[in-house]
Amino acid sequence: MKFKKILFLEIKKENLEPHFWKRIDELSEDKVFLSVDDPNIKSNLTSVDCICTKGFVKKIDKEIIDSIPNLRYIGVLATGYGKIDAEYAAAKGVVVTNVPGYATNAVAELVFGVILERLRDLSRAKNQAAGGNYSESTFFNTSEIKGKKFGIIGLGRIGSRVAEIALGFGAEVFYFDRNRKKEIENKGAKFSDLERLVSTCDFIAIHLVLNKETENIINSSLIQKIRSRTVIVNLAPNELVDLKALEERLAMGDITYILDHSDELSQEQAVKLSKHKNCIMYPPIGYTTKEASIIKQEIFVQNIENFLKGSPTNKVN
Amino acid sequence: MKFKKILFLEIKKENLEPHFWKRIDELSEDKVFLSVDDPNIKSNLTSVDCICTKGFVKKIDKEIIDSIPNLRYIGVLATGYGKIDAEYAAAKGVVVTNVPGYATNAVAELVFGVILERLRDLSRAKNQAAGGNYSESTFFNTSEIKGKKFGIIGLGRIGSRVAEIALGFGAEVFYFDRNRKKEIENKGAKFSDLERLVSTCDFIAIHLVLNKETENIINSSLIQKIRSRTVIVNLAPNELVDLKALEERLAMGDITYILDHSDELSQEQAVKLSKHKNCIMYPPIGYTTKEASIIKQEIFVQNIENFLKGSPTNKVN
Repeated sequence: MKFKKILFLEIKKENLEPHFWKRIDELSEDKVFLSVDDPNIKSNLTSVDCICTKGFVKKIDKEIIDSIPNLRYIGVLATGYGKIDAEYAAAKGVVVTNVPGYATNAVAELVFGVILERLRDLSRAKNQAAGGNYSESTFFNTSEIKGKKFGIIGLGRIGSRVAEIALGFGAEVFYFDRNRKKEIENKGAKFSDLERLVSTCDFIAIHLVLNKETENIINSSLIQKIRSRTVIVNLAPNELVDLKALEERLAMGDITYILDHSDELSQEQAVKLSKHKNCIMYPPIGYTTKEASIIKQEIFVQNIENFLKGSPTNKVN
Repeated sequence: MKFKKILFLEIKKENLEPHFWKRIDELSEDKVFLSVDDPNIKSNLTSVDCICTKGFVKKIDKEIIDSIPNLRYIGVLATGYGKIDAEYAAAKGVVVTNVPGYATNAVAELVFGVILERLRDLSRAKNQAAGGNYSESTFFNTSEIKGKKFGIIGLGRIGSRVAEIALGFGAEVFYFDRNRKKEIENKGAKFSDLERLVSTCDFIAIHLVLNKETENIINSSLIQKIRSRTVIVNLAPNELVDLKALEERLAMGDITYILDHSDELSQEQAVKLSKHKNCIMYPPIGYTTKEASIIKQEIFVQNIENFLKGSPTNKVN
């Protein structure tokens, strides 16, 4: 089984490695690349039966779905598929797949990168030495990870990797999750309720999925209970945290909050948070490793292959 | 047994925590603090029977040792004791002790800090975000540690800790050492000869002690064999490496060398190395953590206690 014609929206030649294109070429008789605003987009759609998209620029709504009569499959080269009307697609028998979890290890390693940067003041040290000043005199009283209490909120794929690495550093690892995770407990991590975790840990890494239950789960009451000198890393959505309460706590100057700034943070919130010296922001660089990109492409192509074989993987609708 | 009078050279009140001073006060009837250049130093020495020193500013040579007739012990609050004529002290029956290995974990954690800073370009990411630009577009194609070959040259205390942490990251760990280390092999690290290690590993961490056998051990031939894109971290003495050959290799632009700049590097060498964008320098911040400082003070005070009990520890002469 092959597709007749795959429409690539936003996905360009350079977005996939050559050997992935080879595999895709075996899955379709024809392919067409169109930019979102192409005036000829409509006339190119007649024989299209598959759309591949990055899923974050172009809305794939009812109108588009209806305008492609032979459409059977939409493959998203991303985890998020919010711009796609997956429900309507399902009603029309169109399968939508995404690429979940490709950046698990990439994000987990970044957690320790940003923690160590903070603990050892690496940016400042590097800049100072680049300027020819090699004195360590202003770098005393920094901190280590070993022997500290390391709390992980949300022990999914990323949280579990963070736990493994933290154990390698010799930290005492605590986790909160809806479910007990025996596998990671056997490695040495201990279950904790949220309140105890935030009030006892030296490090807190937040790795929950955002949904109605978890929105603002790190609420004002919990934020007040965080112990002094705690370093919190949130590379998950900032909606998990009551940002107003966080700001008040940051103003006290006794905790550190490290985040990567993704779309969900408004410009106003970003400006407010960035006023606090103890709030450290990064661009969303958790997922940008070569390794994550390869895994992402592999899952994306496998999704297409598996759909054509009749056993779709990572179906979201 | 107590000392009559301890002379503190270069060591000030603020260099030790109050509870360590308490313990010291029980070990001596009297104490005197003198700066190195004190004009009255001679007149204060009559009843001194113990010198405590940081060991890196003031030379404690024959003249000084001879001028303190009752001297029995010199306690160095540092690992290095090169400024002290330990041999002459031994001939006069004066015990010299140092504080080895207090920064083992502090240095090991820094290895991963500087590696992750390099891999994920953290300094630049942080600075960019601090300036209000949250785009990740220039941070793609970064690298991870997991699954990579991580070579450790010298598997002493620090090297062993580095191995443990690297295993936690999921790297494949290789080590070179004069001796096979079964304990760490049981955890998953593999022995390798030097040539194979440098020619196959993605990361190389150097943790040898400097002596006549190890000086320039990373010689020109080995440096040429390092594979492209390797990240080398050397927080050990730079005399372990043939710096001229290293410079030639750095000029090719295909490897990264990260070092901390300690006294052993001449100003000329530092300037030469710093010209290469792929040579990243830090001040010597490996040992500057709070935790290392506490361990250091503890061993220092224990050394004095143990000497007075008749069973000296960390004796170097």
